[in-house]
Parts: sequence; structure tokens; C-alpha cells
Amino acid sequence: MPPLRQLSLALQAVRRTQIQTRKAQQYERLVVRSCSCSASPQSQHTVIVSSEAPANAQLNPTTSDLSPPPTDHRTLAQTHNLFVTSPYSPGSPLILPNGAYVFQKLQAFLRAQYPQFGFREVITPIIYKKSLWEKSGHWENYAEDMFSVQGRGATSQIPEADGGEDGEFGLKPMNCPGHCLLFREEIRSYRDLPVRLADFSALHRNEISGALTGLTRVRRFHQDDAHIFCRPDQILAEIEQTLKFVGMVYNTFGLGPYKLLLSTRPKDSFIGTVEEWDRAEEQLTKALNNTRSEWAINECDGAFYGPKIDIILKDSNGKEHQTATIQLDFQLPQRFDLQYQASPEELETGSQTSMDAGLDPALRRPVIVHRAIYGSIERFMALLIEHYAGKYPFWLSPRPAIILSLSSDPNVLEHVSRIQAVLSGLKPQDAPAASLPSSPKPLPLSTIHLPVDVDTSDRPLGKKIAEARVKKYNHIIVVGGKEVERGTMNMQIINQPNEEATVEMMQKILERDLTEKEHSKKTVNVGLDVARQYFETLVNSFL
Amino acid sequence: MPPLRQLSLALQAVRRTQIQTRKAQQYERLVVRSCSCSASPQSQHTVIVSSEAPANAQLNPTTSDLSPPPTDHRTLAQTHNLFVTSPYSPGSPLILPNGAYVFQKLQAFLRAQYPQFGFREVITPIIYKKSLWEKSGHWENYAEDMFSVQGRGATSQIPEADGGEDGEFGLKPMNCPGHCLLFREEIRSYRDLPVRLADFSALHRNEISGALTGLTRVRRFHQDDAHIFCRPDQILAEIEQTLKFVGMVYNTFGLGPYKLLLSTRPKDSFIGTVEEWDRAEEQLTKALNNTRSEWAINECDGAFYGPKIDIILKDSNGKEHQTATIQLDFQLPQRFDLQYQASPEELETGSQTSMDAGLDPALRRPVIVHRAIYGSIERFMALLIEHYAGKYPFWLSPRPAIILSLSSDPNVLEHVSRIQAVLSGLKPQDAPAASLPSSPKPLPLSTIHLPVDVDTSDRPLGKKIAEARVKKYNHIIVVGGKEVERGTMNMQIINQPNEEATVEMMQKILERDLTEKEHSKKTVNVGLDVARQYFETLVNSFL
Repeated sequence: MPPLRQLSLALQAVRRTQIQTRKAQQYERLVVRSCSCSASPQSQHTVIVSSEAPANAQLNPTTSDLSPPPTDHRTLAQTHNLFVTSPYSPGSPLILPNGAYVFQKLQAFLRAQYPQFGFREVITPIIYKKSLWEKSGHWENYAEDMFSVQGRGATSQIPEADGGEDGEFGLKPMNCPGHCLLFREEIRSYRDLPVRLADFSALHRNEISGALTGLTRVRRFHQDDAHIFCRPDQILAEIEQTLKFVGMVYNTFGLGPYKLLLSTRPKDSFIGTVEEWDRAEEQLTKALNNTRSEWAINECDGAFYGPKIDIILKDSNGKEHQTATIQLDFQLPQRFDLQYQASPEELETGSQTSMDAGLDPALRRPVIVHRAIYGSIERFMALLIEHYAGKYPFWLSPRPAIILSLSSDPNVLEHVSRIQAVLSGLKPQDAPAASLPSSPKPLPLSTIHLPVDVDTSDRPLGKKIAEARVKKYNHIIVVGGKEVERGTMNMQIINQPNEEATVEMMQKILERDLTEKEHSKKTVNVGLDVARQYFETLVNSFL
Repeated sequence: MPPLRQLSLALQAVRRTQIQTRKAQQYERLVVRSCSCSASPQSQHTVIVSSEAPANAQLNPTTSDLSPPPTDHRTLAQTHNLFVTSPYSPGSPLILPNGAYVFQKLQAFLRAQYPQFGFREVITPIIYKKSLWEKSGHWENYAEDMFSVQGRGATSQIPEADGGEDGEFGLKPMNCPGHCLLFREEIRSYRDLPVRLADFSALHRNEISGALTGLTRVRRFHQDDAHIFCRPDQILAEIEQTLKFVGMVYNTFGLGPYKLLLSTRPKDSFIGTVEEWDRAEEQLTKALNNTRSEWAINECDGAFYGPKIDIILKDSNGKEHQTATIQLDFQLPQRFDLQYQASPEELETGSQTSMDAGLDPALRRPVIVHRAIYGSIERFMALLIEHYAGKYPFWLSPRPAIILSLSSDPNVLEHVSRIQAVLSGLKPQDAPAASLPSSPKPLPLSTIHLPVDVDTSDRPLGKKIAEARVKKYNHIIVVGGKEVERGTMNMQIINQPNEEATVEMMQKILERDLTEKEHSKKTVNVGLDVARQYFETLVNSFL
């Protein structure tokens, strides 16, 4: 921790930056995730959304009263020990245990939902030979944003045995080419589609060092990336499902409302025919009409390889964020010669389009849907950090609870450590407090682990409570002699974004209403079993 | 899938390789994970373990009867769709959904254990500037094995604004330097130690392309890496805990016995004093004596920066594998100038050693323990693939169950899909069979998801069963009209490595013994609730 003076100077600097940022915000530049991205430079667009945007593009902020702007995520990250940056790797934040905890919860949350949406995860390389990026078009069109990789020492002189190529690789900025390789691994029938591949790989894009900022402008990041390979007649259903998935996720985090932006066929250069674009756009429009969200058209703003839907979220400060994206791609399937055996209906109607040119009449090309729901996990984290301003919901919180001792009585300390073991999920409620057994048993995979802290320092309780409040623990648990006797703890619910639902959950588990005193102080005296059950229920309810 | 003839040719080629491999096995070269690896080339050792090794280094193979050699993991990986390789990224296997499932179970298993051993995970950069690798010593001493990284396009010409360095980066071969940066982030007190940082980052080492093999010799891999920063007086306890952790993990997978090898102070060049080495080796010896495993000394074979313990596992074919490693490091703490505020005892005894030279008298350097339990997850997966030969235990199996329909009756098909939803964890047992609801609800993080497959094709049951057997599903579930009426399923337990314990679990849940007929066919007729409960119990018991 830097001394107080350093911190205060740092805060001043951050505030200055914030003011500048707010000035620059009136016309916020939204970087479009140029995803399939064999896009040639001139067809890469940036969307300019003015805060005085036309009526149909207006959004209500998440909270209606325009409160003071949220503290910058970099400042909050310091208070919560979330991440640090290092001049040894500009743009690649080093994510500390607390930040990694949040990151992994975000990842685990999506992973828990993937099976119901039919996604299966894959693990793909980080570096690919130049020849792959030439095939995908990135080597030429994405040059400025890519890092190149070469072996050092003797091996860099030896041409690769396989293929006779030189040893130049590209550090991947996107997952799509790798997923195309995977699709090609098997001969696919129309019955196998859609194939939905998800990937949390690290991606690298070479932003200039002056632009790098916290978790929002980085060189190394992770997307909750996925590619859906589907038949043209499956586009509608896939887009609808994806929009439902987006809605479910944003609802869980209390984010929104958001605006959906459909970018349509560009005026001049595009692949395929006008009719094919019309058909695809019609399906996207139908899917958008079926959602209950506001949506608008960005005429002619699609990439040359397909139309797309961007999700624009407005935060409480009125700042808009592009997060999720759903993008059709008719281009990469051609570049990678992807194909599947047509269905009887497709054969009957002779459904081949310009995309299928040169294919055997019994074959068709799939369409690729690029989609990300968080977008970049790092950027989504930055957004959540500011959205919650340190008051994370319990299930996501790196500081779900702290146990404070009222005295240094050995019985109190033993009770504290027993409560910690039970609440954090390390020990069943009836286990005796003891150090690690000589032959530890593996804990089940479904164990809900919680990083419950303790403060048994010899300081006055008031000080310990004040510190715990600043650190925004969701629960402050106090343990003294009385609690040892009764085998209980005093638990205060604080810093929960959805306090009402949380208190309700506690009442449900206690099977009674809180008394007036309990309610006003948000404090109950409960046993270990009740407390652990309440914690588990909160996690499973995303509270 | 390649046609049959291609497959058979491939199999022949693999068999040829196996024979050659076996010949080369008599003197198996064990690559030592040169972990902290500021080791100069001449002090990097390889251990030669002969299969006619001295008596104290002998190991019993995992199974006592020397059965035919296990099928190569690359062949098994084809049958189970685990991974593929691509000339576009030699040495970076593309891990298919089934393989990614196993990979993630391995990762999740360790993650579930980390809290009880005090590890916290971090996420660190993949690329670091040349200057970091110069500081750690890798740039000079590890040159042959490293990839270098540079921005392409215009940015590659601009010197980095921060630090004025050129834009050359190294792709990380190890996590240690990054973890040292994290340790330095805070001023540490003796009370903060040990700090235990775990990291599953992708690592890259530039093996020559001719040596690359499946998951065993790769360029991109993931370690279950961790670094423990501790006080010298904590070494014993940390090593003991780590050895217990190793034992617990290997026991869960039914691997072993294994041999522990202690490598001690090299004869000539080493850092520190003889007394300091003696003290450290004494602690390692004590920890080894406290285990119930066989161990041996590799005299003078430690790296110049500290002694280490390697774990050598013998598989059923007599082949030895170096997997886990525990390595002390007195060197990196000096290179990175790591320090902590000494304890009152350390101050009193004036415990500064040669490692602390130049430090304020109130400061000490921590010792780093590098440790990995699986070693490389990829290599460990290869070992497990051969160890289980396709018969994965249910909790780890990418094919835990398949449901076969007896007819195409719509009622049967509906029952099949309901069973699939319940058994895979997507729906509670009492939910009606239906497609996705219009507003899907998020599934809890602790949901046990199982990739339960169905085969409702119009083929004879015998064929479907035969195929399911080849694919080594752990359970074959048959559903016909009778099952629809009763709301049950016919479930056969097959391909479970620990069949006895599995059957016992089923009996426990049924609250009765299996009948003779049920026992001989390993088949029971059960309801959805019983089946799901049995599946959950298997997972939570690592069966």
C-alpha cells in the first residue's frame, strides 16, 4: 500500500483525468469490435453516438437521478486490490487475487449457462503461423493491431520442418480463424449444425502505449468469445437465443436498459448479393422486434462481410458502452472453404447462393455468427467496478464477509477460526476447529468457496468495524464471549446492492421475520449452520 | 472423421512410433522443469533415470502385472475427440470440446482445493518486455527456448513511451518473474508470509518442431503453477503441506506409487553458503521423512539457486514420468530485490544470511518455492489418457452417459429429452419437457453440468449399444414404452474404473442391495430423481 500522501496525490491525478474524460465524452467514440475482421481498413467503421442522439437512439441511464459521476475504476481497483499495471507489460494488467476472483466468477457464470444455450468450450492456440493470418486476411488488413512472434536463438534460423515456411507467427487478436480450423476438422452434415464453439483465450491487440488505460484500453484481454456455425435458415433462431442470453446476463448484473443497434449493408463494397443481405437483415430485424428492448438502425454501417447487432449500454453517468456484439459473417466461411452436406429441403429448393459458388451442388457454406456477451471481460469488469462502486453483490464480491474478534481470549479466537472455516466452505458445520488433517480429503467440485476474512488484531472493535466498512465487506461478523457460549455469531448485512432481497432471504432461512431492532441494524445473531446456508442461498440466487 | 482406411494407416504409423519409443525408453530422459530458471546453461541438468536404477530408486508400476503397453494418447485422443494438431500452430494442440471438458475438470479440481491450502489465483501478462527477462536472467540463459514478440506496422517503429525502450517483448515461458512483480507491489511484513500465488496462464517454450508430440512435447502449455513466498523458517511447513497436496491429488486419480527425488547442492557453483544449503536441505529431508512415500537423493543435482524435490511416477508400462516439482529458489528474490519486515525473533537472533546482503538490518529476503502438482496440465492429461485408456472415471469423463431410444414413438422421444435435461443438470426433476423458456433463468454456479448425449437415430438398439460401448460411455441408458409409462430409465453402469465403489454408491441411494440379476448385468431401472442424485454423488466423490 502506498503511504497516504502518495494515495492522495494519485487521487488528485485521477480526478484531473476524469474531468478531461468527461469533457471528451460528449462525442464518445465507440470502438466497434471488428470481429471476423478480414475487413479491409477502409471498410472498418467507428460509430459516432452523440449524447444528443436522435430520439429513437436515446437511452435512459441505469439510475434515473444523475448522481455525481462514478469514481474511476482505476481508483476503486486500488481500494479493492483488484489489479495493478506494470511498465514491464503496458496494457496487460496484472490481476491481483481479488480481481482474479471477480474475473473467475464472471467466467464461471457464463460457463454455468453455456450448456442451456448449447455452447461447448474449446482451447485454441495463442500463436499461429503467418500463413493462417494471410488466409484470414488479418496479416494484411489488421497489421497495425497485431504482434508478430518469432523463435529466438538457433531455432529462429531453421525453417519450420512442416510446410517449409519461415518461423514467423502472429499473436492472435481474435479467435475466429482458429475456430474455422476446428469446424473443418470433421465432415459436417446439416444435422450437425449449429456448431457453437466458445473460447476464453487471451487475445492481444497492439494499441499504442499512450492510449492504454486501466482495464478499458488494453493490449491483452479475454473475450467471452463464441462462434456459431449455422445454416442460413437457422440465423433467426440463433440471433433470438443470443439476444435472450444477453438479456438474461445483463439482468443478473442489474445493468441496463440497453439499446440494440442494427448495422446494415454498406452502400458500396460488400460481398454477396443484395437479396442475400435483405434476407439476412430481415431475420435480424425479426429477432430484434421479438425482444422487448429498444433498437435502432445504423443504415449502411455493417461490415462488408455481414450485418451486425451491437449492444450499447448507458451507465449512471450517461456514458455509453459498447459491450455485447452479434455479427454475421459470410466472408470467413469462404476464405476457409467451410462446408456442410445440404439438407433434403436445401437440395430440393436448390438453395445455393453466391456464397456457395464453386461448391458441389450437395454442399453449402455455413454462416458464422460471431458473438460476445460481456465483450471484453476486462472492459466489462471495469464497467461493473464503476457500476457497483465497491458495493459488489455478495456472489461476485471479493470481500463477502469479515469476522472480527471482540477479545483475544483463546476461546474467542478458536470460535473465529471455526466460523471462518465453515463460512468459507472448507469444513462442514459440525467439524471441530483444527489445523489441516494429516491426510487432507479433496473438497467436492461443487463446493461454494467464499474468501471470508478475519481480523483478530488487538485493536478496538470500533476501528476494526470502520476499516471493514471502508473495504466494503458485505457482512461484518462480530464474535465475543457470548457468541462462544451460544455457538453463534453477530452478523450485520451491509453494502449489499439489493439489500431488500438479501434480508428476505435471511428471513426465509430463519423461518421468521426480523424483529424491529434486527431490521433497523440489519444485524442478526445466528448459528453457523444458518449463516452458511444463507451464504449458499445468496450465491445460488446471484444476490 | 477420416475414413476408415486413413484411420488404419494412421494407427499403423502410431504403432511403429510406439515400438521406437519403447526402444528408446531404457534410458528415459526426464526433462527437468528448470523453473526459476535464471540458471545458466551449464548448470541446467537433466536427470538420467535408468530402468535398471539402484534399489532405492526402484518403483512398483501402478498395476503389478505387466500388461501390453497402453495405447498412445494420440490414438485414444482420436477415439474420444480430445484434441487435434494443426500445421498452422505446431506444438499448440487445438483442444476439442471433449478435451476442454477434461482440461477444465482438472483445473476445477485444483481450484476447489486451493482454498484449503491457502493459494490464491492471479492472472498475469503473457508478454513482458525484454528488460524483465534480462532482469530475471531468462533473456540470456533461456534464449533458445523463448519466443520474442514485436508490434507490427507503424507502432513497431515507435519506441515505447514508457521507459524509452524498444518494443521487444518475450512470450513468457514461466510465471515466476510476473509473480515477483506482484510480490513487490506491497510492503510485506513477516506476518503476511507465506504469500501463495497460483496461476494457470498459457506458457510458451520454443521446442524444435521435429520433437513435437501430441500433448507431451508441446510449445504452448499450461502449468498448475504456483509460487510460495515464505520466510526461511516456514520452508519445512510449506514443503510438508505441498507433499500432502501432491499425495491427495495423485490418490484421487489412482496414480502411483511415485518416487520422490531430492536434488541437493551442486559441487561447484551455487549461490549462498554451505551452511545455508545444509539448513534448507535438512528441512526438505525432514519433510520427505514425514511422508510415507519412497524417496531418494540425487546428490549434487540441485540447480545453483536451490535444492528441489521432483516427483517421478511410473505408469503401468514401466515408463517413468516427471510430473510434480517443488523447487527452492534463493536467486530470484535477490534479482528482484524482494524483501519483508523481519519478525521480532528474526531481529533478535540477527538471522540475516548471505541472501540478505545489502539489506537494511530490519529486512529479510523471502525464499521462493516454485511448485506444480500436475506439472504441465497437457502432459498430465496425456498421462491420464493412457492411464485410463478411455475408461475415465465418471466425474472426469467427457462421455458420462448416453440415452438410447427403443423406438421413434413421440412419447419415447419426449421422455428421452426430459431425461437428458434432468441428468445433464439443465432442469429440475419435476420440470416439464419443453424448449427454452422465453425468459431463461440463470443456472446457479454450483450446478453440476454433465454432457449427457442421446442417440434417437432409427437404427437397431444393438448397433446403438455397440457404438456407445466403443465410445466408452460410463452409462448406457435405454428408454422404451415401459419406461415412459413408469417415468423411469434402464441404466447400465459400464466402463467405470472403480466399478465396485460405483455400484455401492447406487445401492446407497436406492437404499437396498442390487438383485442378483441387476448385479450381473450392472443394470437398474430407476427414476429421474434417483439417477440424477446418483450422478451428483459420483461427481462429489470423484468416482
